[in-house]
Amino acid sequence: MKKASLKDIAQQAGVSTALVSYVLNGKEKETRVGEVIAQKIRQIAKELNYQPNHLAKSLRSGKTYTIGLIIADISNPFFANIARVVEDEAKKNGYTVIIGSCDEHAEKSWDLLNVLINRQVDGFIIVSCEGSENQVHYLKERNIPFVLLDRHFPEIQTDFVATNNYKASYDAGVHLIQSGYSKIGIMAYKSNMYHMEERVRGYKHALRDNHIEFHDSWLKEVHFETMDSEVRTAIDEILASEQRVDAMIFATYGLAINALKYINELRLKVPSDLAIVSYGQAEVFDLYYCPITYVQQPLEMLGKTAVEFLLTKLKNPEESMKQILMEAKLIARESSKAKPALTG
Amino acid sequence: MKKASLKDIAQQAGVSTALVSYVLNGKEKETRVGEVIAQKIRQIAKELNYQPNHLAKSLRSGKTYTIGLIIADISNPFFANIARVVEDEAKKNGYTVIIGSCDEHAEKSWDLLNVLINRQVDGFIIVSCEGSENQVHYLKERNIPFVLLDRHFPEIQTDFVATNNYKASYDAGVHLIQSGYSKIGIMAYKSNMYHMEERVRGYKHALRDNHIEFHDSWLKEVHFETMDSEVRTAIDEILASEQRVDAMIFATYGLAINALKYINELRLKVPSDLAIVSYGQAEVFDLYYCPITYVQQPLEMLGKTAVEFLLTKLKNPEESMKQILMEAKLIARESSKAKPALTG
Repeated sequence: MKKASLKDIAQQAGVSTALVSYVLNGKEKETRVGEVIAQKIRQIAKELNYQPNHLAKSLRSGKTYTIGLIIADISNPFFANIARVVEDEAKKNGYTVIIGSCDEHAEKSWDLLNVLINRQVDGFIIVSCEGSENQVHYLKERNIPFVLLDRHFPEIQTDFVATNNYKASYDAGVHLIQSGYSKIGIMAYKSNMYHMEERVRGYKHALRDNHIEFHDSWLKEVHFETMDSEVRTAIDEILASEQRVDAMIFATYGLAINALKYINELRLKVPSDLAIVSYGQAEVFDLYYCPITYVQQPLEMLGKTAVEFLLTKLKNPEESMKQILMEAKLIARESSKAKPALTG
Repeated sequence: MKKASLKDIAQQAGVSTALVSYVLNGKEKETRVGEVIAQKIRQIAKELNYQPNHLAKSLRSGKTYTIGLIIADISNPFFANIARVVEDEAKKNGYTVIIGSCDEHAEKSWDLLNVLINRQVDGFIIVSCEGSENQVHYLKERNIPFVLLDRHFPEIQTDFVATNNYKASYDAGVHLIQSGYSKIGIMAYKSNMYHMEERVRGYKHALRDNHIEFHDSWLKEVHFETMDSEVRTAIDEILASEQRVDAMIFATYGLAINALKYINELRLKVPSDLAIVSYGQAEVFDLYYCPITYVQQPLEMLGKTAVEFLLTKLKNPEESMKQILMEAKLIARESSKAKPALTG
């Protein structure tokens, strides 16, 4: 990439590089550069389409007004939409957002972190992936400002903005029970990420508190990478088991989509054959023949608050730690409507 | 951001900074540094968690192995998915992708371009937005390598990888006509972007070549920003007109989603009340009660080829210009199935 340099301008104007620098940085008054020569320098800079090197500039000011946003999976509409919120909010505050997606790979997330640190972002907003705890420690040790978004590590003290997933799953379970379902399964990712564990824990406690015995066969954990095939097997198993479920909670949008496709193939009717509650929010839940009940995560607020926390921290690095768990809202629709009372 | 420097390592090892630099850059052989001292330096670098400054390195090598990807709208699943393809392909080739989304605003796209140029990406892949021609000229003038993806400006000579939108719409029109529909409308964005104009032109020519007179009331152009409300009005108008359509083509995914929601509200049945063909591809088209016929853009190939073109160019800046229009494929399903023959 060849750009016009201060030197190019200096040569063409027949003055020193220092003089060009003074003028283009608006310091001609201080150094008493004549207006004629200042004009000439500005004119040549314009002709050569000179672009000030923001990087050099920001190394002096210590600010680049750029935020690095690392998301776990760009092809998941939840993250794509939250990225949009973060961008809008950052822009309102004069910041530009650079995005990297790690596709749930800790190694890729390391790459992105390094690439963006070396590109001098002021701070990070991160949707962490599994196995990336060391990256969080790394940022902490180096005092690089960051806020974890949507997912966090409870054993590491950091700023974070996330959803109360325990409560959301608990509410989903209670809702299904109150709608008359008593054999309730859950499908989640096989993961030791806290948010995923909480989604399962909340579900289990909803059963427990309503005196429904949990059966191991009701919990299906599938791998993110091979979800397409594993979801089908899991559905087959959960329907074939002695404790056949009459309702299911899907802990992520991706799981629900895969399951719905298969449920359609099996010609199962929602909710009469199987009631459904899902995490995530997407048009498909609205447009499905039987609108899907879903856990509405506070996407807008999550994104905005993450930006707010980060900017506060950038202004004042001594700011105290901020952690917030926001409440999700269950949007009840046809897919979990009350079961007709049994007769006979 | 405080990082361990070469100097820190040199001090601790009791050697010169130059020596540390040789070792960490793998040049100890050339300079005959003893293996014991090289080991020691590497060990200290590890303990101090030294991160090579890729930026400084790349300023020397002239390569950062980073690609800037600017997409028009991250919340559109087509672009989110194509971003995923670009990332995967880039990673296979040792490149990291930094993403920016301009949300269809040329001004924001300028910001992103500048931010990323100043962050020394090797080149760009860009999904252009309306009014960004000057940015393309800017990149050309500066010999910054780039490839336009999915959208291009026919009046500017650039590398590009896009879909043959004219042909795709033509095929969609012919398909509907062959399925027995004769009053076919189209909804598109009000835009002078070439890809959008081509989608309308192909549709018109399909009518013309099949001796169907086009009516102005069949073309509905809505603004991206206010699409939610405009789509409803447009549907109302197109259904109320004297030339009420029996089929519609939606030129984008977003338009189709909004329209389907309203069509459901109106309790119109697809395809008997209104047949549908849409651009874009998304789970919702599969899971809708009446699977939607869609124009399958070659997303995977588009993304991969864009990376390939860019990398070729990075290796050899003198490489000749590469332009490709790929064919879309019409995936015919229930939403456009053959109309029952009229009786009586």
